[in-house]
Amino acid sequence: MDLGDRVLVERNGVSYEGVLMPPIRADRVVIKLKNGYNIGLRAKEGEIKLIEKGQEIEPPLLEHHLRKKPGLPDVSILSTGGTIASRVDYRTGAVSSQFSAERIISAIPELEEIANYRAHVIYQVLSENMRTEYWTSLARSVAEEIRSGAEGVIITHGTDTMTYTAAALSFMLKTPVPVVLVGSQRSSDRPSSDAPMNATCAATVAISDIAEVCVVMHGTTSDDYCTIHRGTRARKMHTSRRDAFQSINQHPLGRVDYLSREVETYLPYRRRGEVELELKERLEPKCALVKYTPGSSPDILHYYIEKGYRGIVLEGTGLGHVSSDWIEGIVRAREEDIPVVITSQCLRGRICDRVYDTGRDMLDAGAIEGSDMLPEVALVKLMWVLANNPAEVGPVMKTSLAEEISPFTPITV
Amino acid sequence: MDLGDRVLVERNGVSYEGVLMPPIRADRVVIKLKNGYNIGLRAKEGEIKLIEKGQEIEPPLLEHHLRKKPGLPDVSILSTGGTIASRVDYRTGAVSSQFSAERIISAIPELEEIANYRAHVIYQVLSENMRTEYWTSLARSVAEEIRSGAEGVIITHGTDTMTYTAAALSFMLKTPVPVVLVGSQRSSDRPSSDAPMNATCAATVAISDIAEVCVVMHGTTSDDYCTIHRGTRARKMHTSRRDAFQSINQHPLGRVDYLSREVETYLPYRRRGEVELELKERLEPKCALVKYTPGSSPDILHYYIEKGYRGIVLEGTGLGHVSSDWIEGIVRAREEDIPVVITSQCLRGRICDRVYDTGRDMLDAGAIEGSDMLPEVALVKLMWVLANNPAEVGPVMKTSLAEEISPFTPITV
Repeated sequence: MDLGDRVLVERNGVSYEGVLMPPIRADRVVIKLKNGYNIGLRAKEGEIKLIEKGQEIEPPLLEHHLRKKPGLPDVSILSTGGTIASRVDYRTGAVSSQFSAERIISAIPELEEIANYRAHVIYQVLSENMRTEYWTSLARSVAEEIRSGAEGVIITHGTDTMTYTAAALSFMLKTPVPVVLVGSQRSSDRPSSDAPMNATCAATVAISDIAEVCVVMHGTTSDDYCTIHRGTRARKMHTSRRDAFQSINQHPLGRVDYLSREVETYLPYRRRGEVELELKERLEPKCALVKYTPGSSPDILHYYIEKGYRGIVLEGTGLGHVSSDWIEGIVRAREEDIPVVITSQCLRGRICDRVYDTGRDMLDAGAIEGSDMLPEVALVKLMWVLANNPAEVGPVMKTSLAEEISPFTPITV
Repeated sequence: MDLGDRVLVERNGVSYEGVLMPPIRADRVVIKLKNGYNIGLRAKEGEIKLIEKGQEIEPPLLEHHLRKKPGLPDVSILSTGGTIASRVDYRTGAVSSQFSAERIISAIPELEEIANYRAHVIYQVLSENMRTEYWTSLARSVAEEIRSGAEGVIITHGTDTMTYTAAALSFMLKTPVPVVLVGSQRSSDRPSSDAPMNATCAATVAISDIAEVCVVMHGTTSDDYCTIHRGTRARKMHTSRRDAFQSINQHPLGRVDYLSREVETYLPYRRRGEVELELKERLEPKCALVKYTPGSSPDILHYYIEKGYRGIVLEGTGLGHVSSDWIEGIVRAREEDIPVVITSQCLRGRICDRVYDTGRDMLDAGAIEGSDMLPEVALVKLMWVLANNPAEVGPVMKTSLAEEISPFTPITV
């Protein structure tokens, strides 16, 4: 059955007839009754009878939701596609990206209580198709919204590459208001969708005091709270769980309780209005992430050098190692002024290339230690540093710009 | 100070003079007294005074440890290098790989109570320098030890690439006895070394009923127990913590309590003597692991195809995605009979390319879903399947050979 279909649900002797709506929370089916009210029912798919195929949910519905409510802050929602803006095609079982930001607002009535919204579709792509140009245009759109008075910005985004986009925005923007990326792991028209809770919590963070780029997603597999991750620390660590995102090498910024909408913070953060808006959206896209595996050929370094790449991030083993026969490629990269940044495929922990022979050889060859940066974040940062501070790539890569690096902690735990 | 130096330690009014020995457990300094007994002391580096520089610890010491004790099983220790077989160079602070298996046995007196040992140095490399040839020769050595009557085999190995070696041995060997990989995150001559506990627990597993290739490493940051990971599921998830290894997408096989040496198992496992020894050690080394990042060029696929690679593992985003412009490269690989296996950079969770448009395009192009295999394990498996079953790469890659794939579980958690 599709959203918008006229359906009948019978529960405990009572029949509910109405139009199938996007659900508000897990295990609920939402039906818009004739009197205009929405009702949430615990009904399984088999218990819902189709009366008549419906039309797409009408745009007029949205006007109500976008009507200005006095006393509430102004929040912009920028939609970029992804599961949170997608629906299931019930014929094929597949999901495609179709929902606009307005649709998300109309599907989640709780949002109305939190803020007034301006909604823009920036693009409609599944997030694996994101590219550096999109990050740049997204950063410009965010800046434009803030300049136009948005007191918070929500970006709906596919979860697959949210880590990369969040990192890019973290480096590109100094923001005086919250910039919140949110997505969902189940499409909005599925009963188990995490979209309503994630969006509600994201809106709560968007009007909070946390003026940082952050990711707000389910904190557990239950519908209890969302975790607020720093934009440079959030990583998708599971293909399908609703609580797939984790903060790596730093505690999360905080959490939002779904029901009470209370925000609790765990770390110091940049407060609303503390900085002026600053936008540096340029990137050098010709950077590569190379994951080292045992016995793999160092030719891949020469390939990227010869192809004119401007920077390389190596995802080495353990403390940040590649085999000895890769050293020559690192030396050549340095000679051709191509920075090589070392990260670890362990993901957690800190690079330290001074402990073992191989690591010291890598440093002698000119490799830059990526501290405790995620490989993906190091890649995006390298793109940003090459475009904005090309004369000092090494020192800047080792300096924390957006909390992507923690102060030194001993490698002994 | 170096091991073998003559030192003086004063504790509570008592002086201990003797030769500095490798420590048995965390926070202990071990001194061999004149009467031949070893004593463990809680002493910090500053409390140890050098009396006289010593020589390398004498080989004759080892004879005692290698002397046959009646009634104990025969276990082979194969040393390949790595931190567990390394020591700190106190002049540079760096660690290099110098210890032989005999040295490990002599350094850890507890091992003597568990088994009789035969020790062989297979090679001495830091594990980032491991290559497929080493895996092959190691598998042959393991088989040889088993054929010669070893009732269990311990492989001391660097932790950096232990995931890869453990996976390779899991595919190459059907073993009637335990084959246990063990390493350490701190070199044996450091007070906080995890080597003694890890080695003791590994020996305990080596004489147990678990006739599988497994990894035995610290289960927590304390010295309480080691976790037994399946060879195809263990991944180093932290650069430096002693409990860096985790089982991914499957529970660990079990645990070994350090003090009681009790083995507890959580999963069914292959029991001692259940299968005959079988060795299929061939590998196709020309396989590449490519980690996809947003906007990255599909040229890398064409590069590997043109370089004559025989198989490619893609580490995609989320459920296993790359951007649409990579599809053409996947098609070309299929046309040139080069299997492309899809895994996820999330690491946890299962590939499912039937949910989103991009995924279905990838399957149509001929990509092979890597289920819930780790990318690193999928790479090693692909090398093995190409060498041992080239006619059926697709179906075999999707079949669990060594518990590297779990039976289907719904992606909804």
